[in-house]
Amino acid sequence: MDSFEVELDFDSGLIPVITQDVETEEVLMFAYATREAVEQTVETGRAHYYSRSRDELWEKGQSSGHTQSVEEIRVDCDADTLLYRVEQEGGACHTGHRSCFYRTLDGTDVGEVVFDPDDVY
Amino acid sequence: MDSFEVELDFDSGLIPVITQDVETEEVLMFAYATREAVEQTVETGRAHYYSRSRDELWEKGQSSGHTQSVEEIRVDCDADTLLYRVEQEGGACHTGHRSCFYRTLDGTDVGEVVFDPDDVY
Repeated sequence: MDSFEVELDFDSGLIPVITQDVETEEVLMFAYATREAVEQTVETGRAHYYSRSRDELWEKGQSSGHTQSVEEIRVDCDADTLLYRVEQEGGACHTGHRSCFYRTLDGTDVGEVVFDPDDVY
Repeated sequence: MDSFEVELDFDSGLIPVITQDVETEEVLMFAYATREAVEQTVETGRAHYYSRSRDELWEKGQSSGHTQSVEEIRVDCDADTLLYRVEQEGGACHTGHRSCFYRTLDGTDVGEVVFDPDDVY
């Protein structure tokens, strides 16, 4: 597969991806994807991203087991941002929280802890 | 105000912002903010962003009337992405849809149309 029905705008080769839990509608994380990462996501049904810091394509949960089964991929009006709607295994955040967005701007922790990172990473 | 309790990482001066409806939990839009835009959001309680194409700070709905009342601002684990949780007046998308993420990657329209853009813009 080398194209999508909606022509995506990969600015500098990357597209921002928001990941949302289909069951709770919680926003779980934010990352980037290359065209290849989106293709792998479509082909496997599991969320793939591109790490800018490690400079590599990665599958969420490949080491932790906290994979994301992708139910639907949505595209925004400008076709330059994606929304992965997923079933999240375990937690999305490396801190052990279900969501990476577990605190408010004033520092209050409002998120749910679902695993001990020492057991996973 | 010139600082937040959580020290944000404004990469190149901008931070990505995901906007979510607090009532429906729908992801409405994706944009960027400068420190000043986040400060204005906190101070006014209405969502402000920074337009990279127009190179200016903007308040959502200032021309359309489709403002966003910000109930909560969440920060992700790396403090380099924000989540505005808002009450959306009208629709977030310039196409008339409630959410900018109104279609799937295969082009199917799954979104709700809430206004006629010809009446607004």
